[in-house]
Amino acid sequence: MSQYRTFTAADAVAYAQQFGGFDDPTMLVDAQEVGDGNLNLVFKILDPQGVSRIIVKQALPYVRCVGETWPLTIDRARLEAQTLVAHYQHSPQHTVNILHYDASLAVMVMEDLSDHRIWRGELVRGQHYPQATTQLGEYLAQTLFHTSDFWLHPHEKKAQVARFINPEMCEITEELFFNDPYQPHARNNYPAALEPQVVALRSDKALKLAVAQLKYRFLTQAEALLHGDIHSGSIFVAEGSLKVIDAEFGYVGPVGFDIGTAVGNLLLNYCALPGHFGPRDADSYREQRLEDIRVLWLTFAGRFSALALNNTRDSALATEGYVAHFLQKVWTDAVGFCGTELIRRTIGLSHVADLESIEDKEMRLACVGAAIELGRFLILIAEQIDSVDELIARVRQKS
Amino acid sequence: MSQYRTFTAADAVAYAQQFGGFDDPTMLVDAQEVGDGNLNLVFKILDPQGVSRIIVKQALPYVRCVGETWPLTIDRARLEAQTLVAHYQHSPQHTVNILHYDASLAVMVMEDLSDHRIWRGELVRGQHYPQATTQLGEYLAQTLFHTSDFWLHPHEKKAQVARFINPEMCEITEELFFNDPYQPHARNNYPAALEPQVVALRSDKALKLAVAQLKYRFLTQAEALLHGDIHSGSIFVAEGSLKVIDAEFGYVGPVGFDIGTAVGNLLLNYCALPGHFGPRDADSYREQRLEDIRVLWLTFAGRFSALALNNTRDSALATEGYVAHFLQKVWTDAVGFCGTELIRRTIGLSHVADLESIEDKEMRLACVGAAIELGRFLILIAEQIDSVDELIARVRQKS
Repeated sequence: MSQYRTFTAADAVAYAQQFGGFDDPTMLVDAQEVGDGNLNLVFKILDPQGVSRIIVKQALPYVRCVGETWPLTIDRARLEAQTLVAHYQHSPQHTVNILHYDASLAVMVMEDLSDHRIWRGELVRGQHYPQATTQLGEYLAQTLFHTSDFWLHPHEKKAQVARFINPEMCEITEELFFNDPYQPHARNNYPAALEPQVVALRSDKALKLAVAQLKYRFLTQAEALLHGDIHSGSIFVAEGSLKVIDAEFGYVGPVGFDIGTAVGNLLLNYCALPGHFGPRDADSYREQRLEDIRVLWLTFAGRFSALALNNTRDSALATEGYVAHFLQKVWTDAVGFCGTELIRRTIGLSHVADLESIEDKEMRLACVGAAIELGRFLILIAEQIDSVDELIARVRQKS
Repeated sequence: MSQYRTFTAADAVAYAQQFGGFDDPTMLVDAQEVGDGNLNLVFKILDPQGVSRIIVKQALPYVRCVGETWPLTIDRARLEAQTLVAHYQHSPQHTVNILHYDASLAVMVMEDLSDHRIWRGELVRGQHYPQATTQLGEYLAQTLFHTSDFWLHPHEKKAQVARFINPEMCEITEELFFNDPYQPHARNNYPAALEPQVVALRSDKALKLAVAQLKYRFLTQAEALLHGDIHSGSIFVAEGSLKVIDAEFGYVGPVGFDIGTAVGNLLLNYCALPGHFGPRDADSYREQRLEDIRVLWLTFAGRFSALALNNTRDSALATEGYVAHFLQKVWTDAVGFCGTELIRRTIGLSHVADLESIEDKEMRLACVGAAIELGRFLILIAEQIDSVDELIARVRQKS
């Protein structure tokens, strides 16, 4: 078997020639490294005209944005590839197609999506993709339903739990989401001017108790094979199309987590919009974002319900009324996880361009402060927000 | 490696001589097969005086009480031995000591407990062991705390989940507890006279919805390494001593399940007592049983709280107030699971001697009917029973 080595551009081209599935592999002649994420090398493999034809992605054995002092398992490439392959099976329209992967090289070959753009950038520049939230809701319903106990035979479900045990990537979430922002930590990263707000969070007992409950659900609730890191930066969009990528945080966890981080990133954008379009002109964009959240949840809940009502294999879970009860719990979880996403993206290590790219410093501070406050608020009242309309009303009321 | 073969008495003696840890193995001269359970061969290995010195237990590749038509994985011997070894580490006083096990032969060698008696038999004949519930509460607190996210490093916890994936044994619980009693099934086993009560259960929508929620928690809630089959028949008692055996249902599941089945078996005995001592004389025994339940829960909750307050390693779960919140959820789960135990032991395949050994047929019917009704009631109002005293008041009120 091949042993791990870090790919050069030439390695990536040779690998794509071998595993890209092209009739004429000699058409692949060059590679361009475009990885701007935190963890991986990403090569676009180019044809003689300089057009990207396919992607080679390799996991590095450390956190790229921090350096070799933070080592990280390359087994995450297997977990990412297997998660995407499983999700592709249930939502081929909205999952990037993995053509090949090799666990020992921590490398995968996947379809090129150069005709798509990262959704986050589009949201920041006010470019609306009207179908995106419907498609994301559809993706979440299909992938989460078909990897849950509603659909899988209990033996398959348990085998899936074992196969997707993902300790190192889960640990990142466990720490960055649920620990760091609520205590002093060297990884935290926020403007000094927000110190009073951050200190207030750390001493908010009710908040920390609610966060502990959310962390416990993340640690123990093995409901479905999550993407584990759904946000507008791990989603490509084009006219009429949406494709999910970057699933190295995949594991069997609480369904509300994927929903919550998706909604959370739309709310981060909502909080940032005044910084890009000015307080008054931002209003129509903000209303669009709230409508996105409404459509996302209603599409997810509607599709999941339909799948569950028609296709649930477990006779007890098929009991009348159970799906509605289940989705209500998922919603409550999602609101809480959404709140933790707002806070970890503003106080914690990893930030979002929606807020970071606001040029005016005072405005940026105001938007970041609003996101922190909204996150805190949602975590605290998650159990009282019993519908997406109620969520939207509460968000409007806060801002 | 050795291959599976069903042990004869001579095989069992030879095996005990080899792995029993005796200085003079030739003192082991004979074996007596005493397995009265549903699943296994159990040999007492005797010395020349006919005294049992050590136990050899072997899993059969089918359900013994049904026959070879119901095959069952022998991997359960590994799961049982590993569960007991893990539990022994945290509660050596109250877990049977496994001296050796061999996965391919599905066999284990364990300490002899002939100076103990099965607790169920003692409860049926009205023999009280005043320390038993304290010791059981202590066992449950130690084993469940030390195999949970409160104590284990998240990497260890996830490795534990994978190691104790137990699909076939969990499936038995999933079906016998949560499916069979609520639908017509050939495995169900109840007196014809109770047909109206059983039919009423099957059409009780609120009940079936509550049972679906409990089954979902059993399927998805990976909280701690459960024994998985705690009842008065898997517990040995003697004066001042309690030892838990028979852990082949061990897996990482909801903490409330072990508590609920333990409480459920005390309530099954409570329901059966009038059949053994007459309606009037049963009263003092019944009060003792309710006090047992009180002591069991308060000991468990007190010890778990103390362990969690002093030793929780996870910084979020160490948040002030979280342990109390957690134990409240465990209690609610336990009341629900307790109700399902009452129903599956009266309507489902596997019954208890407490009820079955009541000689008078009418009285037996009355006791069984009372147990079914109590089970139904507890499942339905579990969320309203917020303390053990409230449970006891409700039980008294029903009977």
